[in-house]
Amino acid sequence: MTKRTTAKETAESMAKRQREISVSEFFLKNRHLLGFDNPRKAIMTAVKEAVDNSLDACEEAGILPEVAVELRQVADARFLVLVRDNGPGIVRSQIPKVFAKLLYGSKFHRLRMSRGQQGIGISAAGMYGQLTTGAATLIHSKTQNAPLARRIAVQIDTRSNKPAVLSDEETDWLPAFAPEEEGGEPVVASHGTQVSIEMTAQYVRGRLSVDEYLKQCAIANPHLRLHFRVSLLKKEKGASAAILEEGAWQTYKRATRSLPPAVEAIRPHPHGVELGVLMQMLKDSSARTLKGALEDDFSRVSARMALEICSRAGLNPKTPPARVAHREMEALYAAIQETRLMRPPMDCLSPIGEQQILAGLRKEVPADFYTAVTRSPEVYRGNPFLIEVGLAYAKPGENPDLGAEDSVRVMRLANRVPLLYMGGACAITQALEDVNWKSYGLCQPKGGLPLGPMVLVVHMASVWVPFTSESKEAIAHYPEILKETTMALQEVGRRLSAYLGKRKRLAEAERKRSYIEKYIPHLALGLKDILALSEKQKMEVEAVLTQMLQRSRPES
Amino acid sequence: MTKRTTAKETAESMAKRQREISVSEFFLKNRHLLGFDNPRKAIMTAVKEAVDNSLDACEEAGILPEVAVELRQVADARFLVLVRDNGPGIVRSQIPKVFAKLLYGSKFHRLRMSRGQQGIGISAAGMYGQLTTGAATLIHSKTQNAPLARRIAVQIDTRSNKPAVLSDEETDWLPAFAPEEEGGEPVVASHGTQVSIEMTAQYVRGRLSVDEYLKQCAIANPHLRLHFRVSLLKKEKGASAAILEEGAWQTYKRATRSLPPAVEAIRPHPHGVELGVLMQMLKDSSARTLKGALEDDFSRVSARMALEICSRAGLNPKTPPARVAHREMEALYAAIQETRLMRPPMDCLSPIGEQQILAGLRKEVPADFYTAVTRSPEVYRGNPFLIEVGLAYAKPGENPDLGAEDSVRVMRLANRVPLLYMGGACAITQALEDVNWKSYGLCQPKGGLPLGPMVLVVHMASVWVPFTSESKEAIAHYPEILKETTMALQEVGRRLSAYLGKRKRLAEAERKRSYIEKYIPHLALGLKDILALSEKQKMEVEAVLTQMLQRSRPES
Repeated sequence: MTKRTTAKETAESMAKRQREISVSEFFLKNRHLLGFDNPRKAIMTAVKEAVDNSLDACEEAGILPEVAVELRQVADARFLVLVRDNGPGIVRSQIPKVFAKLLYGSKFHRLRMSRGQQGIGISAAGMYGQLTTGAATLIHSKTQNAPLARRIAVQIDTRSNKPAVLSDEETDWLPAFAPEEEGGEPVVASHGTQVSIEMTAQYVRGRLSVDEYLKQCAIANPHLRLHFRVSLLKKEKGASAAILEEGAWQTYKRATRSLPPAVEAIRPHPHGVELGVLMQMLKDSSARTLKGALEDDFSRVSARMALEICSRAGLNPKTPPARVAHREMEALYAAIQETRLMRPPMDCLSPIGEQQILAGLRKEVPADFYTAVTRSPEVYRGNPFLIEVGLAYAKPGENPDLGAEDSVRVMRLANRVPLLYMGGACAITQALEDVNWKSYGLCQPKGGLPLGPMVLVVHMASVWVPFTSESKEAIAHYPEILKETTMALQEVGRRLSAYLGKRKRLAEAERKRSYIEKYIPHLALGLKDILALSEKQKMEVEAVLTQMLQRSRPES
Repeated sequence: MTKRTTAKETAESMAKRQREISVSEFFLKNRHLLGFDNPRKAIMTAVKEAVDNSLDACEEAGILPEVAVELRQVADARFLVLVRDNGPGIVRSQIPKVFAKLLYGSKFHRLRMSRGQQGIGISAAGMYGQLTTGAATLIHSKTQNAPLARRIAVQIDTRSNKPAVLSDEETDWLPAFAPEEEGGEPVVASHGTQVSIEMTAQYVRGRLSVDEYLKQCAIANPHLRLHFRVSLLKKEKGASAAILEEGAWQTYKRATRSLPPAVEAIRPHPHGVELGVLMQMLKDSSARTLKGALEDDFSRVSARMALEICSRAGLNPKTPPARVAHREMEALYAAIQETRLMRPPMDCLSPIGEQQILAGLRKEVPADFYTAVTRSPEVYRGNPFLIEVGLAYAKPGENPDLGAEDSVRVMRLANRVPLLYMGGACAITQALEDVNWKSYGLCQPKGGLPLGPMVLVVHMASVWVPFTSESKEAIAHYPEILKETTMALQEVGRRLSAYLGKRKRLAEAERKRSYIEKYIPHLALGLKDILALSEKQKMEVEAVLTQMLQRSRPES
């Protein structure tokens, strides 16, 4: 690494420098790929990875999630990020690998909707902490059945991508961390996990902040009770050292106490499996015959369909799957593509749902008009997915956050996780810009987002969200995803158009009426003159006219 | 993977599903991260990875590179991609890992300008071929000293990210592949490497094609002689099977026979090293004292500077480096930041150079005005880098590829490698849009690229190019990189402005003159009448007047 190389190399001299690169070394040098570009983004990414894990664990265990996030400043540009949940806890033997090994986890190898899917996130946050402060990741965890909790400090050995355990002890579970609220509901359960990571970080509010992430998280997860506080160092005038000032807990309450419906893992759908994967799957199959392998290892292949595929490919259904030759495999692959099969099962998806999107929006975004659409599931590359969209439109001046001449605010969600960065690279943004919003009554600069006092929530739920990078900030541009998103946006667009049309008609009628109203006194005065009315009679006429006008005014 | 999960999990049941994810499995599922999103992009990415490797190998060995690229269609949407070079060859033991193991290579662990840096590219291309066709990667290689060549077929075992060698034999080196050209210069040397990968692919010409990549490659590498042909399946009317029609070789000649200056690997600069890396480096140091480690393992730390850093940190310079405690390490890190050090050495960079950029542009882009700027090196995150820019501006109608009202064409290059995709995410594009091109005489839509019949080449050379994804298509937005790029663009912009100003004045003068010219016959006729000239005298007057006008016309 530090040796100077000479100009002329040979194959032999070059061979000596070849070596393996550990995945940790790779991502350490490329930490921007994981969302740890700068101190401001790093703190948001760390919180996001920890909260995502907490929510996944709670839901899998059937526990109504309660999560607390604390940012504790420890030096000028340094924070301790603490995230704690009431989840099922993690068994001792898994803790080091879960928190200090990249590419390790339970979610990558199954087809099931979950927030995490890569087995990178939380270990990457720990690695960033270690890189910038030298500190270890500290985990407290208590499982439901264990009498005591575990307290473990780990670091990543980046050379080998393996965890190094610095300390490991049995301990009491953590005490309650916040005053009780919400009618005496206990704040934390008797089990769960807390992770704390010290890192170079910057805490700033705004569009790309921890605050924004948590707010959107509460909208996307109406069953979540979420606590958040920031404790900053304050230096009194004349004091020698800064003192930590504990912030107040801010709580996002639940909009519902029902967990999202449990989702099932599915087997791969034959139409989404590529030749190379098909070959690997047959090689690994535990079935004794090709027919059996097709039935057991794939979804939507009945006995009859398996036979049809074999016959179309000219293969004996009783062949052991590992014995199918390369050339036969191509015929099999082609036969699968030609065979009509049912779509993949959709119980692997758990949409937020129109009612819950509306509840979430009403709770967090003051506006006048709300609507939501959940589309039916579709399939890309064999993976089931669905799109849902929520819309909130405010009257002028109703919501100070939403300017009438600003671009609409977009909340992008993937498997209930808010995506804040890299909007420009996301299929959702593309679909938004492709819709002709002018036809729904909004202004829209050419090729841009529409303008208006509006919030759009766009959610993609899938067994595998195709992100454009490991930091999981933007969705790749698959045509099927773009199409579904466009159709969902058009549906809420039409509803918005109806609302805006009605509002415009009302405003027009109102304008006319106020015009008439202005002339009622003059009319009354004229009538007084013509009919020689008394002043009292004139006042009566005026009152009657005004009353008539008010009666004919439609509800606004 | 194929088991259905029940809704309620416990810590214990969840632990059973945790497992390691191999880096190959990860990128197989996320192949869009590596540039293998679709068949059209895949073929370009495969060619790019192979050509990059060839050029790096040739230059390291001091060989003037000659590369041949062939795309052979083997079925409807299937191609064999062949890339062959005259490089130093690869020793037998390294071939399987180089071509069938992700994260393996010689370039990641050193700080030196090269095209490859990750140890992913060519193995990823092979993995994509394997995934889509089940075929193996076939490598022919002959080193300079070996009597015979090696012919090896490999695949990746994606479960373990290890190569599986399918065949391995000694063989003769490949025969010459194309007729001789360029004055009898031999077409291929007696050594080199050829890789061939069969893959699902689509061959389309245009902006994002293999053709465009190779054309830009020739501009960025004027010392490269490059051959390219496409052989497609053609089906005669009435014929039962399609027949391969071999394409004609197209050759990009060299603009120079001198190799780029050899570059040196540098040691890390202390100001670019983060705390965690500093700790790791001291732990690994072979020096016996802290002072020695600072001097040996970092660039620009003299004995005096090492002592200054130690004293500032309050540390004994004689401490063994592995014995420095965590708390002392933080003091050391702070002391390094506070110490003024020379900038990193710049002989690790090899710019294309203004002359070579101009030569490349003149060779491939017909235009009227050419200019180029190579800036001095700068530093981001401790890494030396430099920016250079070339500009070609065509007269109206001079270059049919360049429309006067189209956006200017931009060639983005990183370490001499053309970047075709993901322009929107690249720091170069950002810098281009941020420059106020109106002040240089071009039209520019708000926040967009300037318009005009112009080509811009923007090259970033660095020991570590910070790409936004593993597919290496866009450069991350580091402020230092943006600033340097902006300044280089402004410099060529000013020169363009001078040229356009001069051209405008010339056009104006020309317009006036042609106006006068139109009236010369009338003037002569008038003079003939007034002075009673003969027809011959009138003709003479006309000739003299035209001559005068021509003399006063400035050079155009």
